[in-house]
Amino acid sequence: MAFDYSTVFRPNLPPAAKRWSGFPKYNFVGGHNDGAAVPVQDFIDAAAVVLNREGSTLATYSLESGSQGYLPLREYLAGFLDKTTGMVQTAEDILLVSGSLQALDLVNDVLLAEGDTVVIEEAAYQGAVQRLNRLGVNVIGAPLDDGGIRMDALNNILNDLKKDGVKPKYLYAVPTVQNPTGTVMPEERRLEFLKLAREFDVPIFEDDCYADLTFDGTRPRAIRALDEDGRVIFCGTFSKTIAPALRVGYIVAEWDILSRMLAVKRDGGSGALEQMVLGEYCPDHFEDHIVKLRGVLKQKCNAMLETLAAEFGTAAEVETPTGGIFVWVTMPDSVDTMKLFEAASAEGVAINPGSEWVADPATGTHKMRLCFGNPTVDEIREGVIKLAEICHREFGVPERGSNIER
Amino acid sequence: MAFDYSTVFRPNLPPAAKRWSGFPKYNFVGGHNDGAAVPVQDFIDAAAVVLNREGSTLATYSLESGSQGYLPLREYLAGFLDKTTGMVQTAEDILLVSGSLQALDLVNDVLLAEGDTVVIEEAAYQGAVQRLNRLGVNVIGAPLDDGGIRMDALNNILNDLKKDGVKPKYLYAVPTVQNPTGTVMPEERRLEFLKLAREFDVPIFEDDCYADLTFDGTRPRAIRALDEDGRVIFCGTFSKTIAPALRVGYIVAEWDILSRMLAVKRDGGSGALEQMVLGEYCPDHFEDHIVKLRGVLKQKCNAMLETLAAEFGTAAEVETPTGGIFVWVTMPDSVDTMKLFEAASAEGVAINPGSEWVADPATGTHKMRLCFGNPTVDEIREGVIKLAEICHREFGVPERGSNIER
Repeated sequence: MAFDYSTVFRPNLPPAAKRWSGFPKYNFVGGHNDGAAVPVQDFIDAAAVVLNREGSTLATYSLESGSQGYLPLREYLAGFLDKTTGMVQTAEDILLVSGSLQALDLVNDVLLAEGDTVVIEEAAYQGAVQRLNRLGVNVIGAPLDDGGIRMDALNNILNDLKKDGVKPKYLYAVPTVQNPTGTVMPEERRLEFLKLAREFDVPIFEDDCYADLTFDGTRPRAIRALDEDGRVIFCGTFSKTIAPALRVGYIVAEWDILSRMLAVKRDGGSGALEQMVLGEYCPDHFEDHIVKLRGVLKQKCNAMLETLAAEFGTAAEVETPTGGIFVWVTMPDSVDTMKLFEAASAEGVAINPGSEWVADPATGTHKMRLCFGNPTVDEIREGVIKLAEICHREFGVPERGSNIER
Repeated sequence: MAFDYSTVFRPNLPPAAKRWSGFPKYNFVGGHNDGAAVPVQDFIDAAAVVLNREGSTLATYSLESGSQGYLPLREYLAGFLDKTTGMVQTAEDILLVSGSLQALDLVNDVLLAEGDTVVIEEAAYQGAVQRLNRLGVNVIGAPLDDGGIRMDALNNILNDLKKDGVKPKYLYAVPTVQNPTGTVMPEERRLEFLKLAREFDVPIFEDDCYADLTFDGTRPRAIRALDEDGRVIFCGTFSKTIAPALRVGYIVAEWDILSRMLAVKRDGGSGALEQMVLGEYCPDHFEDHIVKLRGVLKQKCNAMLETLAAEFGTAAEVETPTGGIFVWVTMPDSVDTMKLFEAASAEGVAINPGSEWVADPATGTHKMRLCFGNPTVDEIREGVIKLAEICHREFGVPERGSNIER
């Protein structure tokens, strides 16, 4: 007789996952990237060189680099981040992790208990929101404009919390190519952000995972670079700039907290082969690669913006992103994007319903996130046309598409 | 002014990790392996072939295999495990994870809440014990003999728990090359184990991470292979057979529970490059490789057993392991192995104090685990001689070493 696992499951277990059934035909979800841009030959070469030189060190946990991760990659990152973000640090300030998702988990594990409060952006990365909800943390969304979190609004939130005797555990932001709105917080506002964090004595968690992908290649200095108190925990990743199936991210932070994250990182180290290959590949190739990738992504972004404009017209209010792999779209009140998501999924068009990318689900009902990193330009065009058709059929909008009344 | 992170740490945070300062000279701890045995050239070749063929799929999370992990590796494992363990299953029953440590985390996440009870072996894998303690789980150690868990004792434990109205969430065992005692549970006892699990209606968690490393290459069928109820959750790993810095392990279980583990596996997939390289490498090379590795490890094991006998004589009671990478040593009552660990560490000899490898720390005070996978034969000899000297100096035993009175 089959054992009944429901008799031993813990309380509040999430529902079962479904069997994987392949990618949707028009895949506008997930942090996937451009397949043709993966530097395959350079990876083959890097793997041969690094394995030939030090492959036998795979026989020890964490190679010969210790639990912070492969030292040559940390050394490369220290220089790269100094150059691009203005952060001055050494390999000793960096912890390599299994993608920036593990960065979120480690920061949360060190700082959060049930009932704590965290302030995040009102439209925010789903993975961050889900984790906070699962931990029973009080999530407060700070209003955004085209420069990221509005500091007047954040000031009010922090003041209100203070009146209630609540000090947030951290302020979370994706200030450089915000997810999902695609905005960049200007340096002046970053300084205001730091000033507020100082005034209310809270740390900032700066998630910079899309920051290397601004279309014009420029970016303000990192908040962590502007900080003088060591109150900023910074994370980044190679998922968006190289390939998401490689699980290599990084945290840059003070040893006071990095040493606590190491103590709760009980995974025997993050995958070393991926770190070794990146450590060998990056010094000669990474900067050239991201220049090329930005061009590819900008072209895809333009295809998506053009097709959205042609097919949805004024029915879709689209934020023009400064970089990254997604656009954030606001639909008329008559369009429930969760219902659109369901109808579109059934026809092979995958979208992110807005209610999953906001701090307060009710605020996302008419919004959606569309990712353009993985599909080809042709697939983007076809998929958006199909999405407009489905949306028209389900909700009567857009009324016109490609200048033809439906 | 430096931000004070102690103001935001969660309660009960473990102490800070220390900076890594290199490996000890005589490294008798950790699941490290033989450096020279890492199949470096075969890995270089496999990486080139698999990346050339499908490197661009790294652009999507989990490649094109879904969240259970790289399909060709799962297909290989299905065949390999059927051949070696007698388990008949398909790639659909396998979940690739980031080392068997993630297997422990996922099983625990799905089954355990604070206050639950788990029965494990009285001398047990430190990583399993630590995790259970951290979760606030009641850990009960079942007595062992040279065939693993004693079923009469387990029967008593389960009966006593039942009288108290307690049903354990699972029974954990490393039945094939037990960690740390190095024993193998015979098939007949595996059947008794299953009978008890059925009688008390609990699942078994079978951790088979050393099972490919029996020195004579034989092993009984897996408990999961003997089970007819689907009550056995099985895990294994490539850490011990290939290299621990590769974080690739696997879980084989019923979809009822595998689908729940997938739902709480929020890491964006385990590292895909490592899975791809293994998936390409294994079909042509893995079985030959483990035959070679067994020979290397047996030689090292013999060096350790011989030197222990020569240096410690009757002062050390040593279990002769059937395979794996460690020996379990019982010292006289006058030797506190935690103190020996401290004295030896200071002189470059790293050992596992027994109290960290048992369910009840008090039962490990005079025991120690010595790993022989990573040091060379010469280092094993030198290190054990040094350990005997330190032990003699600190505790007066062994009285004689190498037939010379100290």
